Amino acid sequence: MFRINISTSDRAQVLTQALPYIKQYSGKTVVIKYGGNAMVSDDLKSAVMEDIVLLSTVGIKVVLVHGGGPEINDVLAKIGKEPKFIGGLRYTDEETMDVVQMVLAGKVNKGLVQRLEQHGGQAIGLCGLDGGMIKAVKMKGEHDLGLVGDITSIDVTLIRNCLDNGTIPVIATVAAGENDGVYNINADIAAAQIASSLSAEKLVLMTDVRGLLRDKDNENSLISIVNVSDVPSLKRKGVIKGGMIPKIDCCVEAVRRGVKRTHIIDGRIEHSILIEMLTDEGIGTMFL
Amino acid sequence: MFRINISTSDRAQVLTQALPYIKQYSGKTVVIKYGGNAMVSDDLKSAVMEDIVLLSTVGIKVVLVHGGGPEINDVLAKIGKEPKFIGGLRYTDEETMDVVQMVLAGKVNKGLVQRLEQHGGQAIGLCGLDGGMIKAVKMKGEHDLGLVGDITSIDVTLIRNCLDNGTIPVIATVAAGENDGVYNINADIAAAQIASSLSAEKLVLMTDVRGLLRDKDNENSLISIVNVSDVPSLKRKGVIKGGMIPKIDCCVEAVRRGVKRTHIIDGRIEHSILIEMLTDEGIGTMFL
Amino acid sequence: MFRINISTSDRAQVLTQALPYIKQYSGKTVVIKYGGNAMVSDDLKSAVMEDIVLLSTVGIKVVLVHGGGPEINDVLAKIGKEPKFIGGLRYTDEETMDVVQMVLAGKVNKGLVQRLEQHGGQAIGLCGLDGGMIKAVKMKGEHDLGLVGDITSIDVTLIRNCLDNGTIPVIATVAAGENDGVYNINADIAAAQIASSLSAEKLVLMTDVRGLLRDKDNENSLISIVNVSDVPSLKRKGVIKGGMIPKIDCCVEAVRRGVKRTHIIDGRIEHSILIEMLTDEGIGTMFL
Amino acid sequence: MFRINISTSDRAQVLTQALPYIKQYSGKTVVIKYGGNAMVSDDLKSAVMEDIVLLSTVGIKVVLVHGGGPEINDVLAKIGKEPKFIGGLRYTDEETMDVVQMVLAGKVNKGLVQRLEQHGGQAIGLCGLDGGMIKAVKMKGEHDLGLVGDITSIDVTLIRNCLDNGTIPVIATVAAGENDGVYNINADIAAAQIASSLSAEKLVLMTDVRGLLRDKDNENSLISIVNVSDVPSLKRKGVIKGGMIPKIDCCVEAVRRGVKRTHIIDGRIEHSILIEMLTDEGIGTMFL
Amino acid sequence: MFRINISTSDRAQVLTQALPYIKQYSGKTVVIKYGGNAMVSDDLKSAVMEDIVLLSTVGIKVVLVHGGGPEINDVLAKIGKEPKFIGGLRYTDEETMDVVQMVLAGKVNKGLVQRLEQHGGQAIGLCGLDGGMIKAVKMKGEHDLGLVGDITSIDVTLIRNCLDNGTIPVIATVAAGENDGVYNINADIAAAQIASSLSAEKLVLMTDVRGLLRDKDNENSLISIVNVSDVPSLKRKGVIKGGMIPKIDCCVEAVRRGVKRTHIIDGRIEHSILIEMLTDEGIGTMFL
Amino acid sequence: MFRINISTSDRAQVLTQALPYIKQYSGKTVVIKYGGNAMVSDDLKSAVMEDIVLLSTVGIKVVLVHGGGPEINDVLAKIGKEPKFIGGLRYTDEETMDVVQMVLAGKVNKGLVQRLEQHGGQAIGLCGLDGGMIKAVKMKGEHDLGLVGDITSIDVTLIRNCLDNGTIPVIATVAAGENDGVYNINADIAAAQIASSLSAEKLVLMTDVRGLLRDKDNENSLISIVNVSDVPSLKRKGVIKGGMIPKIDCCVEAVRRGVKRTHIIDGRIEHSILIEMLTDEGIGTMFL
Repeated sequence: MFRINISTSDRAQVLTQALPYIKQYSGKTVVIKYGGNAMVSDDLKSAVMEDIVLLSTVGIKVVLVHGGGPEINDVLAKIGKEPKFIGGLRYTDEETMDVVQMVLAGKVNKGLVQRLEQHGGQAIGLCGLDGGMIKAVKMKGEHDLGLVGDITSIDVTLIRNCLDNGTIPVIATVAAGENDGVYNINADIAAAQIASSLSAEKLVLMTDVRGLLRDKDNENSLISIVNVSDVPSLKRKGVIKGGMIPKIDCCVEAVRRGVKRTHIIDGRIEHSILIEMLTDEGIGTMFL
Repeated sequence: MFRINISTSDRAQVLTQALPYIKQYSGKTVVIKYGGNAMVSDDLKSAVMEDIVLLSTVGIKVVLVHGGGPEINDVLAKIGKEPKFIGGLRYTDEETMDVVQMVLAGKVNKGLVQRLEQHGGQAIGLCGLDGGMIKAVKMKGEHDLGLVGDITSIDVTLIRNCLDNGTIPVIATVAAGENDGVYNINADIAAAQIASSLSAEKLVLMTDVRGLLRDKDNENSLISIVNVSDVPSLKRKGVIKGGMIPKIDCCVEAVRRGVKRTHIIDGRIEHSILIEMLTDEGIGTMFL
Repeated sequence: MFRINISTSDRAQVLTQALPYIKQYSGKTVVIKYGGNAMVSDDLKSAVMEDIVLLSTVGIKVVLVHGGGPEINDVLAKIGKEPKFIGGLRYTDEETMDVVQMVLAGKVNKGLVQRLEQHGGQAIGLCGLDGGMIKAVKMKGEHDLGLVGDITSIDVTLIRNCLDNGTIPVIATVAAGENDGVYNINADIAAAQIASSLSAEKLVLMTDVRGLLRDKDNENSLISIVNVSDVPSLKRKGVIKGGMIPKIDCCVEAVRRGVKRTHIIDGRIEHSILIEMLTDEGIGTMFL
Repeated sequence: MFRINISTSDRAQVLTQALPYIKQYSGKTVVIKYGGNAMVSDDLKSAVMEDIVLLSTVGIKVVLVHGGGPEINDVLAKIGKEPKFIGGLRYTDEETMDVVQMVLAGKVNKGLVQRLEQHGGQAIGLCGLDGGMIKAVKMKGEHDLGLVGDITSIDVTLIRNCLDNGTIPVIATVAAGENDGVYNINADIAAAQIASSLSAEKLVLMTDVRGLLRDKDNENSLISIVNVSDVPSLKRKGVIKGGMIPKIDCCVEAVRRGVKRTHIIDGRIEHSILIEMLTDEGIGTMFL
Repeated sequence: MFRINISTSDRAQVLTQALPYIKQYSGKTVVIKYGGNAMVSDDLKSAVMEDIVLLSTVGIKVVLVHGGGPEINDVLAKIGKEPKFIGGLRYTDEETMDVVQMVLAGKVNKGLVQRLEQHGGQAIGLCGLDGGMIKAVKMKGEHDLGLVGDITSIDVTLIRNCLDNGTIPVIATVAAGENDGVYNINADIAAAQIASSLSAEKLVLMTDVRGLLRDKDNENSLISIVNVSDVPSLKRKGVIKGGMIPKIDCCVEAVRRGVKRTHIIDGRIEHSILIEMLTDEGIGTMFL
Repeated sequence: MFRINISTSDRAQVLTQALPYIKQYSGKTVVIKYGGNAMVSDDLKSAVMEDIVLLSTVGIKVVLVHGGGPEINDVLAKIGKEPKFIGGLRYTDEETMDVVQMVLAGKVNKGLVQRLEQHGGQAIGLCGLDGGMIKAVKMKGEHDLGLVGDITSIDVTLIRNCLDNGTIPVIATVAAGENDGVYNINADIAAAQIASSLSAEKLVLMTDVRGLLRDKDNENSLISIVNVSDVPSLKRKGVIKGGMIPKIDCCVEAVRRGVKRTHIIDGRIEHSILIEMLTDEGIGTMFL
C-alpha cells in the first residue's frame, strides 16, 4: 500500500482533516443507496464494499440499500421473458416479481454481504419481508405497473438491532403486501424513507453520474451544494430534469423529514464515499 | 376454535401436562429443520409456521433451517436445465449454484419469513453468507459434486443476536467458500451443526416419514426412543437403511456434540411439533 | 398421567388455544382470592396450589390472598370462646383478634406456602403488617364490630419485589392500625384493593359457588359474562342478592379502578383456574 | 434528645470512633438472635427494634431471628395444656407444634415486624417454611422430643432478596419437614446456621445474661474476648457450663463456618447492640 | 482513643442522635471551603482532613475547595516580590498569577490530597483548568486587580465523576480565561457557585471566626441560625460588617440558588465539621 | 487547512491506510511521555496537544506523562538556587522538591491540561499523590540524590476512571513517600511503569532525538524496528550509549512487562505521533 510520493506532512494534513469528521460521524447513521447501474465491475463493487467496511470500522453505522436492474434483466433473459418498462419503471407481473425477489434478495443482496464479509465487515442481508420491515400496497398512478408498490410503513427495529450489534444491514427493496403478496419497491425511494425513519445523519445515493451538473455535458459544471429550497427554481430552469428528477425528489424529501444532508455521488469513481465523507473537498452534489 | 367435545377435565389434563414442558423449554434453544419434501401444501406450510410462532410466543428460542429441493427443480426447469443427482446429492455446477442460492435464500427463505410474520412472529431470513455464518470447502468424496460443500466452520453470533432480540432466524443453507465462491450445503447436516454450536436443547428434523419404523411398511411399528449407542446395531439389522441413514447420522452426531435430544418427526401431520414438544406422547422417534 | 382417550388433534387444539393466553398473561399480574369456605379438603387445597404453581411456572405473576374462617372458629372453640357474627361479619374483640392473627398469619398462610413449595413453587407468606403493606382504621358503620378495620392505604412495594423475584406472595389480611394495634380485614375487599393497586390483569375470587346464577337453584343458569354497568339492574331484579352482593361489589370496584377483568369461580371444581384462564371456555362469571 | 452534659469533644470522640465501624459494617450482614427471655418489656422490645432500624439505616444488613418461649407458654395455658420440657428442650407434640407455629410465626414475628415498621424500618416476617428456607428432620437423640427438628438444609435466597431490597427479614424458626410436616427448631442453632450460610460478618445472641462471666455471680468478671480455640479448656475448667454450653457451641460453630465474630450480649441493657457494634468498648463477650 | 469517662448511655445517646443524620446526608453532596487562614497548624490540618475522610467513609459526597493566602505570600517573599492588596483582594500581575497557580494547584492542593489519602480517603487534586471546570473573565470593578477573575461558567461533570467513584475532589480556585490565560478566583465565591451547580445539600465555610456574633467581641453572642431574608436588616444594624459581608453574601447567594443550608464554622476548633453535621447542637452559624 | 495539491486519490490512500489503525487502537490505551526538552516552543506544544486530542477523539485512550526540567530550572533561578545534577539526575533537596512539585504539578501539568481543553479535549491534571497513584521510597544507589525516589507501587484506578469517562489524564511524576513526604520520579520510568500497569497497547517516548541511530551523527541511519532481545548486543556494539541507555531500558522493560510496542520518536517534528500511529511509515524507532 505504501507509496513513496506522499509526504509525511501531506499525510498528517489529510489525517488531521479526517479525524474530526470521523469523530463527528462516529455512532451516527448513514444510509447508502448503491444503484445497480453503478455496479459496473466486480473490482469496483469490491472497492465500494471496502470503503463501507472502513466507515463501519471507525464506528459509523452504515445501512446499505441496493438495486440490481441489470442482473434482473439477465435472469429474465434466461427464462425467455422480455423486460417491460413504463415511464422508466419496470412493469412487474407475478412471474417477474418472483425473479425480482430471487435476484435482489437471493443473489445481489447476499453477494454484497459476502464481499463486505471478505473485507472484514460484519454484514447481514435483509429485504422488506424480514421483521415486517417494509409494508406496501399496489402503486396508484396513471399506468398499471403490476406488483410495483407504494410504501405504507417502515419498521426499522431490525435495522437498529443490526446497527447496535455492529453489523451492516444490506437491504433489498422487496416489500410485504399489507395483506399478502410481495411488491417491487423503487430503491431510491426506499433508501430515502429508511433514512428518514432512522433520522439518519446522511443519505448518499451512489449513481452513475457525477452529481447535479449545471450543463449536463460538462463535468466541470458540477454544483457542489444545493439548498433544497432552490430545487423548484432549478427544475423550472431545466437544470434538474429527466432521470435526475426522481432522485433529487428523494433527496429533498429526506432532508424535509429530518435527514441532515443528502448526497448524489458518482459510484464509478474509486473511494468516492471516503472522499465525500472524510475530507473538506466535496466530490458530488450535497443537498441540505 | 371452540369444539364442544373436549371435556373440561381433558383440557385441564392437557394443560397440566404441557405447562411444565413450556417452563422447561422456555429460554432454551430448539433447532427445527423443515425439509422441502415436507412442504406439501401452502396450508400445511402455514400450519407449521403457526406452531413455530406459538413456541416462540412462550419464550422458546426457535431456529428454523430449511431445504427447498422441489422449488429448485421448478426454476431449473424454467431455464431448461435438467437436475442431476449423484448418490442422492444434487450435482451443482456454477449455473445450478446460482439457482440454488436465488431459490433458497431469495424465495423459499423469505417466503417462510413472510408466513411467520403473518402469524404474528418476528422473523429474519439469513443464509450462511450473512455474518460469515457458515464457511465451507468443496466436498471431498468418491464423486465430484461440483459446488456441494463440506462445512469448515460455523459462527452463531448472528443467530444468538437474533434469538436474544426475540426474533426467529430462518436459515438457507448456502455457505461462503473459505476463500471465495459459494457452496450448496445439505440442510440436515447444517441444522445438526448449528444445533451443536448453539448447544441447543433439541434438534427436530421435520421430514416426510413417520419416524424410524421397525417395519418400514407398517406405521404402527414406530420406534419412539432410540439410544444413540444402539444405532450401529440397528444399522446392522437393517432397521436403519437407505435415506434414513444420513438423517439418523445427523441425529447421532448432534447428540454426541451436546444437543440433549434429537427428533425425527413427520412434518405432514398437523401440529406434529406441538405434540412432540408439549405432550408426554411421542409422535416420532427421539434420539438421546 | 397419560390417558389414551384424548386424541392427538384434541391435544393440539387445546394447546394452540392455550399458548396465546399464556403469552398474553405472561409477565402480567393476577390476584387470586382463595376463600376459607373453598378449602374443602386437603386434596383440593393441594390441587389449587398445583394450578397456581403451574401458572407461576409460565411467567404469570400470581398473588394469593386467602381467608380462613373455619380454622379461626376451630381455635376459638379450643380456648372456649364463642364466635360472634353481626350482619355476616365477625365481631372481633382483642382476644379474638389475637386468634385471628395467629391462625391466619401463622397457620393458614404458612400452610399454603408450604403446599406451594411442595409443588415446586417459590412462595412467601405475608400479612398486612409486613412492609407496612396494609394500614387500617376501625370500621365505621351501624354496628360496633370491634377490631374489624377499613383499609386506609396499601403499599404494594413488597408484593412487587416478590413478584419480580419469581416468588408467589401469599397474603393474610391482617392490617396495622394507622397508629397502633392490628385489625381484621375482609379478604375479598383486601384482594380487590391489592389488585387495583397492582393494576392487575385479573382478580379471581375462588368461592364455594358456581358463579352468578340467574336462578340460584339451577347451576345451568350460570351467567358467563357481566358488564359492570349492568350490575345495578341485576341487583334490582334480585339476580344479585344476599352473600353475592359484597363479592360482586368487590368485582365491580376492582374493574372500576383499573383491573381488566374479575372472575367469580367455583374453587371446589378441580383445575377451575386453569380452565378459566387458559381456555376459550368460561367456567364461572367474568365481570368486565 | 439533647442533653447538656455531653461535651462537644466527647461527642466528637464517640463519632470519630463510630464512623469507621459504620463504614466497616455498611453493606455487611449481621444476624441478631433475640431470645424470648430478653423480651422483658414492651419498652425494651421497642428500644431494641429502634437500634436495629438505626443499624439498617446506615446500610448494615440486619437479619433478626427470634424466639418466644414465654408467649408460647401463655397460649398453651389458655388451651389448658401443660408445657413439657426434657433436658431444657420443649417436648413438642402435634397440638403443641400447632401452637408454636401460630405464636412464633403469627404473633411474635409479626409483632416485631410491626415495631420495626413503627420505628421507620422496612421489615418482613418470615419462617422456615417461606421460600423453603429451612428444611428439617426429626431430631435424633436420647429422648424423643416429638416434633423438635434438626436442620438439614438452609436456603438463604429469600433472605438475600430481602436484604438487597433494604428490608429487614424477621425469622421465626419453624421448619418444613424434608417430606412433610413442620418442626420446631432451636432459635440459637437456626441463627448460627443462617449466619454461616450468609457468610455473615457477625452473629449476635441477645440473651438475658451479661456474657460469659469468669465467676457467674460477679458481673464484673465478664470475659470480653474468647478465642474459639480456648473454649474446650474453659469448659473443662467449668467457666462455661449449664445453659451457656449450647449458646457458646453455637458461637464456636458459627465462627468455624466462616462468621467473622460472634457475640453474646445482654439484651436487657438499653442500646446494648449499638454499644457492642459501634464503640471500642465491649459490652458482652466476643468469640473470634 | 478510648476514654473511660464517657458512659455507655452517653455513647448510645450520641449514636442514636448521629445515625439519622448519617442516613440523611449519605449519598448527598456537601461542599466544604477550607480557608488558608484556618490552616493554622499541620496538626489541625490533619484533624480536618480526618473528619472529611470520616464523612466520606459513611457515604457523604464531600467536595473540598481551598484557599492558601499565607503560603502564596511565603513564595512571593522567596522570589523577592511584595504582595499587594486592594480592598482586601490580591492584586495579581502575571508573575504573581504564576506563583498563585503553582502554590495553590501544585502545593496546597496536592498537600491536602496527600493528607486525605494518608487518613484512608480517596482524593484527587483539581483546579478550574481541569476538565474546563471554571471559566472566567477579568473582574470588572472600580480598581484594576490584574488577573483576578469573575466566574463566567462552571462545569461540574468532572466533580460528579469523582464523587460517583467515591473520590473526594480537592479544588484550587484557578480558572481558565474564556479565551486564554488563567485567573485567580476568590475561593469563597467559587465554593458557593460549585455548591449551587451541584445542588449541594450543604455549603460549609471553615473560617477563623466562631460564626456570626451579635457582639463581635463576645464569643457567647453567637447567632446559631439566620434566615437569609433577615440578612439585609442585619447589615443595616451593623451586625454583619467588614470581612463577614462577602462571606455571608456567598452564603445567601448559595441558598438562593438551591443549596439547602450554608454554614460558617470555626475551622480552628477540632472536629467542628463533625459536630456541626452529626449532632443536634450547632457550633457555628447556619443560613437557611 | 485545505491545500489544493493533495490529489483525491492520495487522500483516499492515506485514509484507507489510517482507518484500520484507528480501528485497531480504538478503545486501546496508549501512554505518551512528553519530555521537557521536546517542549521547544508554545506552537509545538500546541501541535502535540492537538494530535493527542485527535487520537482521543477517535476513541484511543491516551495517558500523557510529562517532564519539565527547563521550567524547573527557571523557577530555581528566580529564587536564586543553582540546579545540581549527579550522573544526569537532579539532586533534589527539600527546597528543590518544593519547587519541582509546584512547577510540575502546578504549572506544566495544568498548562498542558489547558491546551488540551483548548483543542476540544477533556483533560485532567494529576500527579502521583492523587488517588495514591504512585508510591515511592528514597532511591538507593551510589550517590545520595536527596528526594529522588524509586517507585514501590502504582495504583491505576484513577487513571482507568478518567479513561473510562473519556478524559485524558495528564500526569506529573511526583510521588508520595511510603510513609510521608514526596519524591521526585524520573518521568520515563514512571511512564513505562504506568504503561505496564495499564497493559497498554503502546508506550511512546517523545524526545528531542530522531530515534535510535546506527550512526548518531547521521539522521538517515535511523533503525526503525528493534527486537528487545537485540538490545544487549546493540549496547555492546556501542550503538546504544549515553543518554539513550536509560530511555531504551524503559522501552525494553515495558515490553517485557506486557506493553505490546514502545516507540522513541522525535517530539520536535510536527504531528510525529499521528504519523507514527496512523500510517504504515515509521518515523522513529519501535521496540517489540
